[in-house]
Amino acid sequence: MELYGYFRSSTAYRVRIALNVKGLDCTHIPLSILGGEHKGEDYMSKNPQGFVPYLSDGDVGMGQSMAMLEYLEESYPAPALLPSDAAARARVRQLSGIIACDIHPIDNLRVLKYITDELGASAEQKTIWYQHWILEGFRAFEILLQDGKSGDFCHGNTVTFADLCLVPQVYNARRFNCPLEDFPTIIRITDNCNTLDAFIEAQPENQIDAL
Amino acid sequence: MELYGYFRSSTAYRVRIALNVKGLDCTHIPLSILGGEHKGEDYMSKNPQGFVPYLSDGDVGMGQSMAMLEYLEESYPAPALLPSDAAARARVRQLSGIIACDIHPIDNLRVLKYITDELGASAEQKTIWYQHWILEGFRAFEILLQDGKSGDFCHGNTVTFADLCLVPQVYNARRFNCPLEDFPTIIRITDNCNTLDAFIEAQPENQIDAL
Repeated sequence: MELYGYFRSSTAYRVRIALNVKGLDCTHIPLSILGGEHKGEDYMSKNPQGFVPYLSDGDVGMGQSMAMLEYLEESYPAPALLPSDAAARARVRQLSGIIACDIHPIDNLRVLKYITDELGASAEQKTIWYQHWILEGFRAFEILLQDGKSGDFCHGNTVTFADLCLVPQVYNARRFNCPLEDFPTIIRITDNCNTLDAFIEAQPENQIDAL
Repeated sequence: MELYGYFRSSTAYRVRIALNVKGLDCTHIPLSILGGEHKGEDYMSKNPQGFVPYLSDGDVGMGQSMAMLEYLEESYPAPALLPSDAAARARVRQLSGIIACDIHPIDNLRVLKYITDELGASAEQKTIWYQHWILEGFRAFEILLQDGKSGDFCHGNTVTFADLCLVPQVYNARRFNCPLEDFPTIIRITDNCNTLDAFIEAQPENQIDAL
């Protein structure tokens, strides 16, 4: 298995955690994002979006980190990263979707670049933008965690997709000094995750391309 | 089953198609988005994001349209909206993710409101923004459809999640006069979908709250 990524990519970070939890051997291939390697012809022929990560497993290849998580779960089911019953799976996927759809893409580098280069946003406006979408999403996420179904992790006492999405998003939030004091459950769960080797080894600073 | 929605919500539109394909009885509960009903206490207690759609099925309830599609697929598997093998499912989920993560959320009403109200974008800049993210995503989507695995629909000759995501996104693109001549496969597949009752009945103009 090969994962094309970038140490700071929070979507690659999700997939790195999944690979670690499942104990899967994978060659990590860092792309030089600053050098534009992800927009080069060679990489674009794999992933025409020109985004990291890209996962290949034999003759199966795909972009989109949530597709990767579902693929890994279906192909390498143990240990599971989704609960077994449909209602619990829906809860985990809803939590994941808040981050994967409604926070991360809006704060992605290409969007930040657009608001500064095309709309003239200042550095301060960019920071407020970045924090705004995290805070909006985390408010809902924190409330949903209060439904009695969370435990050490977002869903009970087992790591799921929701934790894989949450931890990299909190990492980014901290990097941009986003105030997190209103989210005690998010922080408690993130701290729990970050004691596990699977999460520690997936952290940006522990990647071979870390600056 | 109950689906809280809004005729123009393209994420509700995805779920309406899924319910129709699967022939599931569902009460549609339109919210007055213009009247702010989705931000009212009652609805926020169901979905703390304050977004439509929200699906309830007995005592299971969830926000996030992609979580709904996965839930419906797992709970009501026939007719299937995902292929059976993992590689094909990955392809469908990658295509779906391009729209569900990397187009739709960035063009959502709350983001459009932010760029105009907070960043001072003009009406013209707003339109360019809207089209920009659709065009970026559709370029990749169109290329991926050329891999020999598409047929009448995005994946072979059976409707999948990818079609459920694509058709509402094309609907929005047309509403905002987004030029689509570079995407002949997207248009061909969308036209095929729109001959089917499940898609026709899910169209915004055919909802009880259509203006």
